[in-house]
Amino acid sequence: MSHTVAEIAAALGLEAVGDTSIVVEGVAEPADCPPDRLAMAMKPEYAEGIAKGSARAAMLWGEADWQALGLEAAILAPRPRYALSALSAMMDPGQGYPAGIHPMSAIDPTAKLGRDVTVGPFSVIGADVIIGDGAVIGPQVHVGWGTRIGDDALLHAGAKIGARCTIGDRFIAHFNAVVGNDGFSFVTPEASGVEKARETLGDQGEAKGQPWARIASLGGVTIGDDVEVGAAAAIDRGTVRDTRIGDGTKIDNQVQVGHNTVVGRHTLLCGQVGIAGSVTIGDFVVLAGQVGVSDNIRIGDNVICGGSTIVLSSIPAGRVMLGYPAMKMDQHLETYKALRRLPRLSREVAELRKAVSKEDPSD
Amino acid sequence: MSHTVAEIAAALGLEAVGDTSIVVEGVAEPADCPPDRLAMAMKPEYAEGIAKGSARAAMLWGEADWQALGLEAAILAPRPRYALSALSAMMDPGQGYPAGIHPMSAIDPTAKLGRDVTVGPFSVIGADVIIGDGAVIGPQVHVGWGTRIGDDALLHAGAKIGARCTIGDRFIAHFNAVVGNDGFSFVTPEASGVEKARETLGDQGEAKGQPWARIASLGGVTIGDDVEVGAAAAIDRGTVRDTRIGDGTKIDNQVQVGHNTVVGRHTLLCGQVGIAGSVTIGDFVVLAGQVGVSDNIRIGDNVICGGSTIVLSSIPAGRVMLGYPAMKMDQHLETYKALRRLPRLSREVAELRKAVSKEDPSD
Amino acid sequence: MSHTVAEIAAALGLEAVGDTSIVVEGVAEPADCPPDRLAMAMKPEYAEGIAKGSARAAMLWGEADWQALGLEAAILAPRPRYALSALSAMMDPGQGYPAGIHPMSAIDPTAKLGRDVTVGPFSVIGADVIIGDGAVIGPQVHVGWGTRIGDDALLHAGAKIGARCTIGDRFIAHFNAVVGNDGFSFVTPEASGVEKARETLGDQGEAKGQPWARIASLGGVTIGDDVEVGAAAAIDRGTVRDTRIGDGTKIDNQVQVGHNTVVGRHTLLCGQVGIAGSVTIGDFVVLAGQVGVSDNIRIGDNVICGGSTIVLSSIPAGRVMLGYPAMKMDQHLETYKALRRLPRLSREVAELRKAVSKEDPSD
Repeated sequence: MSHTVAEIAAALGLEAVGDTSIVVEGVAEPADCPPDRLAMAMKPEYAEGIAKGSARAAMLWGEADWQALGLEAAILAPRPRYALSALSAMMDPGQGYPAGIHPMSAIDPTAKLGRDVTVGPFSVIGADVIIGDGAVIGPQVHVGWGTRIGDDALLHAGAKIGARCTIGDRFIAHFNAVVGNDGFSFVTPEASGVEKARETLGDQGEAKGQPWARIASLGGVTIGDDVEVGAAAAIDRGTVRDTRIGDGTKIDNQVQVGHNTVVGRHTLLCGQVGIAGSVTIGDFVVLAGQVGVSDNIRIGDNVICGGSTIVLSSIPAGRVMLGYPAMKMDQHLETYKALRRLPRLSREVAELRKAVSKEDPSD
Repeated sequence: MSHTVAEIAAALGLEAVGDTSIVVEGVAEPADCPPDRLAMAMKPEYAEGIAKGSARAAMLWGEADWQALGLEAAILAPRPRYALSALSAMMDPGQGYPAGIHPMSAIDPTAKLGRDVTVGPFSVIGADVIIGDGAVIGPQVHVGWGTRIGDDALLHAGAKIGARCTIGDRFIAHFNAVVGNDGFSFVTPEASGVEKARETLGDQGEAKGQPWARIASLGGVTIGDDVEVGAAAAIDRGTVRDTRIGDGTKIDNQVQVGHNTVVGRHTLLCGQVGIAGSVTIGDFVVLAGQVGVSDNIRIGDNVICGGSTIVLSSIPAGRVMLGYPAMKMDQHLETYKALRRLPRLSREVAELRKAVSKEDPSD
Repeated sequence: MSHTVAEIAAALGLEAVGDTSIVVEGVAEPADCPPDRLAMAMKPEYAEGIAKGSARAAMLWGEADWQALGLEAAILAPRPRYALSALSAMMDPGQGYPAGIHPMSAIDPTAKLGRDVTVGPFSVIGADVIIGDGAVIGPQVHVGWGTRIGDDALLHAGAKIGARCTIGDRFIAHFNAVVGNDGFSFVTPEASGVEKARETLGDQGEAKGQPWARIASLGGVTIGDDVEVGAAAAIDRGTVRDTRIGDGTKIDNQVQVGHNTVVGRHTLLCGQVGIAGSVTIGDFVVLAGQVGVSDNIRIGDNVICGGSTIVLSSIPAGRVMLGYPAMKMDQHLETYKALRRLPRLSREVAELRKAVSKEDPSD
């Protein structure tokens, strides 16, 4: 991972200044930075750390005065966080899974693996699986019968991909991620209390317990290119058609995507988001951590939901939402400001009633 | 999976009409349906898709006019979703784990496996384990020392079952499901801030930090018949007695059931539900996605909690609840309607106070 | 696990009374207690169960009248739950993983294992890993390249520890726990709608979709001594520096700790807690189940957050919080009492407005 400052700047398409022949072996926070690393001081408030550490070179925000910071070299980035993306890819040592097919793996003879594929120890590749070139399948992974995965996949230890899924190129599954488990779909012989409570908004009528009959998941999961699925996340298979995840969508740890749900392109589902079944989510949506979405909801393109927003009804494109239940963010902030003053408001109303009833003895 | 329309209708106990000798190989959504599949058009709004696809036969709602839809045959289902249960079971190709005991598995010689048991590659069966007939134990599964599992279990890849658990017939554990991990039980030498804050409802007194001592989980987990546990779900073992899950209860992905908790029969715990320790949940309860339940709570039979309901106190039988903290659903809907109008209400009260104080110069 | 009552009392530093030579093989709840177990009747309300069971000896609260309960012996504990900690450790049979290095494991020749280390079947120990004395590494575990783990670790089946992590002594990872997966860090070429909505508190301007570029996680995870990580929990690695977990901190099932986050010492993160990236959490903090914490938040020492509290802004030391968004618990209780009365309050204000406008015809 040794690079000169000049090489890094060239790879990132950025301007390098000073002694750009300095070699760095990695990155570090400014205050902990040894001389052989590149300090990441991407905002003015991080720059003071440089003096505490031993950095000779740093990545700085666009207008930074690198010489005043006592550096010998710098890379100037107008949008440093974006530059960090390419820089971190250059510097990433990864998990270091040894290359090649491990002898203690179980690969069905009908599976077709592309060129330069790694399969780690104790991994299982089922019948009729097709895996593209350059895939790195870590240890203890399972890829089920008939599933196709594109080129350059990276499946981390313990990931489980079910049968008959279709996955694009550059797919990443983190530790113990799950794709293609059965959906959670059960039905009662007669209309259940839930069905009645939904119709009446709260009354389940004469509650009569019935056992649940299982509906098997005959669909699979279809995933586009450049998708990630986080640790211990779970993407259910569909009931009749496939559950679908669009190109470029990133799914964080412990996220649940229910059966039949369709998630668009370039959407972020952050940690612990829970999406029920048959939901439709647009492109460029961001659902922050712990957001919950009820079944059969539609969320339009470019919607943003803040942390733990609970979505119980559909959201038009472009909205920014917060709260339980979800409101527009500005309305939520105003409402919750009023909520904090509600006990005082109650007292004020009580006083007003007293005052008004005193004025009007006939009342 | 080839069946004639007549065979399917007979298996489901439903009426078939038209050319019931047509053979189908699976099911499909109406608009994507090839001629060799059965179109699922279970509501009038799905029927228009039939003309776009190539279905010759469909499953339709009870009163459907199948001939007007251009079909050659149909199965008429008065409650089509319920019919889908048996139909999907007939059509489900499953995960396709190869039958038999894989040579790269680790089965303790004292374990007793029933007839026709499959154990996949890299699975571990501990000492004194007893597994019933017909069990399919997928790859990379762990069944701990002394655990008993009934007949016809289906343990998907990566499921981990701890030691000394007792599990009924027809148990299903999805990918990476966990049963029988230690509970989360810690205690401080002297009363902790949490204990004090609970007593005083908010005041922990002079907060004094103490390290936590671990309480080991000596109990196990007892699970009835016909139970499912979802992907990455976790059912803690009990402290002294067992944590218990009743017959027919279905547990979705990423659900947490805390130590000592008792869940009744035919209850649904949907995705990401979190139940703390020592909770008692009745029969035929439905907790929708992300519902949270505090420790030592009782939830009566037939209770329904909507999505993300947070249960901080016990709920009598038959209630339909929503919100944080949980209210009766109709009360919640009325309250949150009022909450959205709260900023306006605040302004109205401010105006009233001004008006009333003008009227009463002595105020 | 056979012990006399006298031995147990001595080990716990507690007073034993009656025939302390009685031998017990384990513990039980009073009503189900066989004669060869110690009944756990740690509060007066549990004592009535003793008559229903067959216990000869019990652990009782400090002032209990053991003879009146018909017992032959008792251990008297002034704080019985604390005594249960040491007692349960004495009685815990554990998961029973067989000792030694299993032949079907994959241990890199450069890994250094301490004395008396167990490695279960189908486990993987990467290059340059260092593991201390007495570690029990269960089956199907992964420890990544260059990671160091201290003495007496217990890694349960399916736990996945990523590369280049540093973990202290007595570490426990439960089934399928994850430590050291990549963080969820993505950036757009130009300022995203999320960045704009954060600045404006709700307005993302002209929403323009941009694909997300990945930021790799170059940091690792550093964990102190005496830390536990629950089933299916996930601790992300840091971006530049390590994510950090302090000594004595206990992390429950399905908890998410985001990249760069620093958690202090002796803190409890209960089930399904979700902590975003770059959060700082103090010592002796308790976050109850499902608590959510936004990124870049600071939570001071000794803070307690009740179940499902959503933390959107920093919390000073010592506070007890509840609600979405988090309020001080007493304020929350008062506010939500008022919220339940809000529909009535709205009606009262409507009546007042009518009354006041009648009085003032000029209005």
